[in-house]
Amino acid sequence: MERVPILKIGDILLVSIQIDMSDQTAVTLQEDLAERIVATGCHGVIIDITALDIVDSFVGRMLSTIASISKVLDAETVVVGMRPAVAITLVELGLSLNGIRTALNVERGMELIAATRDDDLGYDDDPEDVESGTAATSP
Amino acid sequence: MERVPILKIGDILLVSIQIDMSDQTAVTLQEDLAERIVATGCHGVIIDITALDIVDSFVGRMLSTIASISKVLDAETVVVGMRPAVAITLVELGLSLNGIRTALNVERGMELIAATRDDDLGYDDDPEDVESGTAATSP
Repeated sequence: MERVPILKIGDILLVSIQIDMSDQTAVTLQEDLAERIVATGCHGVIIDITALDIVDSFVGRMLSTIASISKVLDAETVVVGMRPAVAITLVELGLSLNGIRTALNVERGMELIAATRDDDLGYDDDPEDVESGTAATSP
Repeated sequence: MERVPILKIGDILLVSIQIDMSDQTAVTLQEDLAERIVATGCHGVIIDITALDIVDSFVGRMLSTIASISKVLDAETVVVGMRPAVAITLVELGLSLNGIRTALNVERGMELIAATRDDDLGYDDDPEDVESGTAATSP
């Protein structure tokens, strides 16, 4: 059975999907990814779909599931490399990639994950900005 | 026709080979890679073969060709993620990956490329070490 390789680059796991995903391949990828997140302590998962000509509801659901699993394991998921035609088809099909963040390419995906982590950890260069924070922090 | 995606990460182009390479796919990959090296000015190419169960003479020759093309375009090529079984088979088949550098994983490949670049550019923390250089620099 084919297996999608997971590459570790710094604090990020990179998955490049190039093969047609079967039920079994998708489940294996989800399991492998969950194990690697726990084993490495990575806080980001980037899924590259440059090679995909089409993202149907099956692949869309797989991406959502991976994002949800990663979230529970304290890792952000970003999907990168979506082709313009794929984006158009997704919208035409009425598929919204629930809970999935996207970025143009791997580098921007890495920036997005780094920025999200900084936000989550409450890093802030200017502590006085805290007062002008979101409504959620207001009494 | 299937196309192997090329991902840019910093100064490095990353290629993850997961599909069976046909003649046409291999030629397209070589052309795409050469174009991307010129367009991006990247100085390193990392080819991940984690997904490959076997590296035959065709794939071996393709890797050598890519390394040679990259070299002419001033980029180092490192092959990473070779499985133990693949390495054993390669040796048993008498295939030597001429001119190809290898590393255990993507991160080490990046380190290797960075180190090679530093050497090539003549960076040296301690200039006095030059005298104790290799025999090749001796008269």
